[in-house]
Parts: sequence; C-alpha cells; structure tokens
Amino acid sequence: MSLANIRIVLLSPLYGGNVGSVCRAMANMGLSDLAIAAPRPYDRKEARMMACHATQILETIREYPTLAAAVADCAVVMGTSARSGLYRQHARSPREWAGRALEAAQASKVALVFGPEDNGLDNVDLALCTQIITIPATEEYLSLNLSQAVLVCAYELFVASGAYAPRQEKSPEAPSALRERMYAMWEQLLLKVGFMERDKAEHMMLGVRRIFARGPLTIDDVRILMGIARQTEWAVTHVGGSDPAPAPAPQAEDHL
Amino acid sequence: MSLANIRIVLLSPLYGGNVGSVCRAMANMGLSDLAIAAPRPYDRKEARMMACHATQILETIREYPTLAAAVADCAVVMGTSARSGLYRQHARSPREWAGRALEAAQASKVALVFGPEDNGLDNVDLALCTQIITIPATEEYLSLNLSQAVLVCAYELFVASGAYAPRQEKSPEAPSALRERMYAMWEQLLLKVGFMERDKAEHMMLGVRRIFARGPLTIDDVRILMGIARQTEWAVTHVGGSDPAPAPAPQAEDHL
Repeated sequence: MSLANIRIVLLSPLYGGNVGSVCRAMANMGLSDLAIAAPRPYDRKEARMMACHATQILETIREYPTLAAAVADCAVVMGTSARSGLYRQHARSPREWAGRALEAAQASKVALVFGPEDNGLDNVDLALCTQIITIPATEEYLSLNLSQAVLVCAYELFVASGAYAPRQEKSPEAPSALRERMYAMWEQLLLKVGFMERDKAEHMMLGVRRIFARGPLTIDDVRILMGIARQTEWAVTHVGGSDPAPAPAPQAEDHL
Repeated sequence: MSLANIRIVLLSPLYGGNVGSVCRAMANMGLSDLAIAAPRPYDRKEARMMACHATQILETIREYPTLAAAVADCAVVMGTSARSGLYRQHARSPREWAGRALEAAQASKVALVFGPEDNGLDNVDLALCTQIITIPATEEYLSLNLSQAVLVCAYELFVASGAYAPRQEKSPEAPSALRERMYAMWEQLLLKVGFMERDKAEHMMLGVRRIFARGPLTIDDVRILMGIARQTEWAVTHVGGSDPAPAPAPQAEDHL
C-alpha cells in the first residue's frame, strides 16, 4: 500500500519523451502519482509515444505552479542530485533511502523530486527536500537521463516494498536418492557405449558428477537426464545402422 | 576491472533513441562494450541525441550478423526476458545474477542480451543464454523500455562491483560532550527569552532533545546550533527595538 502514497515530482521538464518514459517507468514499478511543478511546454505527442501502455498515468498528471505547492502535503520530500557540495554531503543512494521512504509512506505522502534535464535541482529547490538522493554512477558521467533516474528510484522502492515475488521454480531441487538413480543409469549407459572401461568408471563418473553438480538440479532436470540415459541405452541396443529410433521407443517427454 | 569484460548485446533494436539511451546508461554505469546483433536500420541522429555525452560508446558499437556471433567469445551469456514459461522458471533478478556475472567477468567475457523492443528474446535466442534475467516489475506492466532494462542491469552490476563509493560526510557525528554543550546553551537561551520557566526546563528540554535526536547530528550541525544559540542570546541582550543585530555581533558562519 505504501507505493500508492509515493509521488514522483518533475520540476519543469523540457522533453515530452522523458515525461512519457517516466510514466512507463512508474507503471512498471507500481507507482501512479505523477506531478509536474512549474511546467514548461513539452511535446505531448512524444510523451504519449514513450508512455506506451502507461497512458493512465500520463492522463492524470497534476500540474502545480511551484515545487513548494507540488510537495505541500508531503511529509518526506526526497530530492535527487548528481552534484556534490557542502550541503549535499549527506546524500545517500536510492537503495539506502528506500526504507525511510516506504516507512513514511505507510502514513504520509512522500515525494521524490527530479530537476529539469539541463540543470537539475538548485539549492533553493533542495531546501524543500528532507533528504537528498544521489544515484550511484561513475565519476566520469554522473548525470543520468531524467526518466532513467526516475526508473532507478522507482525500481529500488518497488524491490524494497516486497511487492516483487521472485519467480519460483515449480520443480524443487532433486533429492540425493533420485540423483543417484540418474547417475546409476548414466554409468550403465556410458559403460555400454564404451565411453569408459569398468575399472575407470568410478573415476570418470566423478567428472560427470562434477559437471552436473555445478549448479542445482531440479527433479524435472534429473528426469530429463534419466530420460536421455534410458532412451539412449534402448537405442544402442535396438537400433541398427544410422536411422533414428523408431516410434515405439520411450520418448524423453514421457519423463517430464 | 570486471566491468570492462561485460558486453551489452542488443538484438535487432528498432529505435535509434533507445540505442543512444543505452550508450548513456552504460557510460553512467561504467560499461563500454556495446554490440548489436542482426542489426536493422535505426535513426542515427536520434541515437546521437540520446547518447548525450556517451558518444565514445556510440561510435565504437560493433555489429554482428547473428546473436550467436555476438556472444561467441562469452563464457556467461545472460538473456533478459519479461515473459514466463516452463523454460523460464529459473530466471532470476539482475541483483541475484550480478555476483555470478562479475565473478565470471574476472576471467572471461560476459554478455547481457536484450531482445528487440517489439518482441523480446524468443526461445531460439534464449537457448544461447546460460542464465535468464527477469527485472522485477508489476504484473500489470512487466515490459520495460529497452534502454531502461539495460540501465537496471548495468546499475546492479555497477553497485555490486563496488565501484561506487558512497558519499562521505566530512564532518563526523558529534560526540556526546559537544552535544551537551550545545543543549546547555539552548537551555540558557530558552530560559532567557522566556520560552520556559526554570521549573519546567528539564521537562521542556527533553522535547528539544527528542527533536534533535531524531537523526544523526554531525559536529558541523552542532556548531550551527551552538552558533544560533550564542548569537540569539547576544541579540536578546544587546539589541533593542525591531532592528536586526548590528555587524559586530558574532555571525553563525564563524562557527562552521
């Protein structure tokens, strides 16, 4: 619910493409409250093009005459700045401030403020901000594109909010007993095709085991490997010449 | 050094603006190796405009006829995909894969592959990939703009590489003894101006202490607060009427 209380505020943006890209970045990251302070004319057609499917946000942008008005109802006001200086030393990264922003957003409005493309936020703008965000970037090129700066901040908030559910593999990691059945089948196959002699089998199988143990193997993975061993052994026994195995043989897909 | 071994590969990008924005995002995040696989014509003028100061990267883009050719020398090949499906369940976020990418990049070339704007990477493209990256985003709008997808991945690599040095405050957090001197000065001032009676002073000062203890106070912060108390007490004693304090009085800046 915290994300609903977070407002992105663009101060006098110049380019419609950026305004549109900001809308899309916000939609990607679960934000919807976009304000423009001290607006200047921008290319509305470009904005629509870059907003892509985020037209809802584009169409509900609210405009305010000043930055102070745009953040008037916000408890926490975080301003972004790539510049450094005496009164910017306490700036932190968006990841470091994400917790503070989300905590405040449980009960209050929170603003993230982004300056114009050409100059960023000046000291008068930053005076309104309770926190300063500086996005990690190389010293050689510290200044991000406006919409990309919004994306990084929105992404950090989205990830920190816990709204993101990491993709889950449906098949759990295979237990040792299943894996051992698979290795036994591979050993039998590799002996049969003459890949190794019986007295070298134990040694060679350590190499095979090492390969398959480099990363996790799920039950589905092990079943594919068992299917390969079973089908190949069948083919070695039953198929003569260079033709592929005929239809009646068990197919790998049966084992998935 | 790892970042130098990381290649961004764009498969058949459609829009020059995206190619340029990718260049800028890479320059921001310390990457420089950009390849385009199976190129289609794109607007070079738009690319130059969006690349901004990242012209070095724009001018050294290498083009390859196929994705396979663009990643041929890469040990780790990470493909980005917003789509899910049976063979995409093992996708992880760019933050989860950043360590793996940087570890491999110490000794080998590593590719991060991004599909065309309209369709993304298909199964044939993903077959070349050793890992799949899915960027955290809302279920409602999973698909990021191409250059923003590159930015998030590059940003995670940059942060994980340790290349980013958090901004340091030059003034350390104030020790208790200095802070107590400041509170003593404020107490004396607040008594003098009649903000509180002596018998309520202890109680009121707990409220003042609470305010100043909400966050860290550096030595510079405490010196500003001491300067305010000192100057204000001076003005209360010496300045009559409504004029501001005259020049000879100590100024706050002297205490910084």
